[in-house]
Amino acid sequence: MSVTLLEQRIDGERIYSGKILDLEVDRVKLPNGHVTIREVVRHPGAVVVVPVLSGDRLVLVRQYRYPVGKVLLELPAGKLDPGEEPSICARRELGEEIGMSARRWTPLGTLYTTPGFSDEVLHVFLATDLQPQAGLGPDDDEFLEASIMPKSEVFTLAREGKIHDAKTLAGLFLWQLTAGQE
Amino acid sequence: MSVTLLEQRIDGERIYSGKILDLEVDRVKLPNGHVTIREVVRHPGAVVVVPVLSGDRLVLVRQYRYPVGKVLLELPAGKLDPGEEPSICARRELGEEIGMSARRWTPLGTLYTTPGFSDEVLHVFLATDLQPQAGLGPDDDEFLEASIMPKSEVFTLAREGKIHDAKTLAGLFLWQLTAGQE
Repeated sequence: MSVTLLEQRIDGERIYSGKILDLEVDRVKLPNGHVTIREVVRHPGAVVVVPVLSGDRLVLVRQYRYPVGKVLLELPAGKLDPGEEPSICARRELGEEIGMSARRWTPLGTLYTTPGFSDEVLHVFLATDLQPQAGLGPDDDEFLEASIMPKSEVFTLAREGKIHDAKTLAGLFLWQLTAGQE
Repeated sequence: MSVTLLEQRIDGERIYSGKILDLEVDRVKLPNGHVTIREVVRHPGAVVVVPVLSGDRLVLVRQYRYPVGKVLLELPAGKLDPGEEPSICARRELGEEIGMSARRWTPLGTLYTTPGFSDEVLHVFLATDLQPQAGLGPDDDEFLEASIMPKSEVFTLAREGKIHDAKTLAGLFLWQLTAGQE
């Protein structure tokens, strides 16, 4: 790590403590000695799952995303409960969101969604050898539709600019890069 | 769009108005009629640039990201100024961050970084036919290092889990999907 790029916290203030996020505003010292503020959204972290069925078919979900006012096509994902292990969370979310369990789990990496203003980290997993699981169903305030789609169709949608969720594109890319490397 | 997935705003409150983001907390009506709150980080939007030199070499930047406390390897990116066109912003950021201009620009799509809690949208561009530009330099509170790296090395780093920035992986994926399609 380049020492010259580091920023040091001087002090800060918790502006908001909420349901899924907190907001802090810190004063920090820059590499040139100047002082600025950094606005930081604290988030518990989440998981993203790439669920792959036989025949290179993927399971995606459509979900209304209130902040952007649109239904987006996404990989299944969900927030970590307090203290929850990512691998446990991934199993839970797969059951809740698409009603499936997986016999095989492969970690694909960790991502920061918005490192400029949030500490949210996503743990990405490949889930294979899938089978139906008696559904727990999604959270009380979560409504979504699962779809099984051939990989070729998903990649065509991505190429045509019809998949707008960054974690979904990043997760698919990590899957593609590691396919055949296992 | 599935009508059954929609959520309707009832009312809301601006909690914070800041330098790079605002925070709003809205009460919304869910598809089942229940009422919940949605915490929304409002962001001006940003651009991401995939700068490609001859010989399949990419220009990436290393930058300290205060919210995650790490130096990350990323594609050049930056926030839109108020009212700024994304294509203008992309040209400005390329000059500021890597000291280059591009003769050819290709839009690769738009992404939402965190549609679960923010409206941040990223406009992704491919920049080719690059040439040095007398540098404006980065913003006053921005410190970064540019590196030219072969595509093969960048993809190896991504496969090994050493690129953690989601927009960078998503941008590279969009570039890969569209390469040869122009």
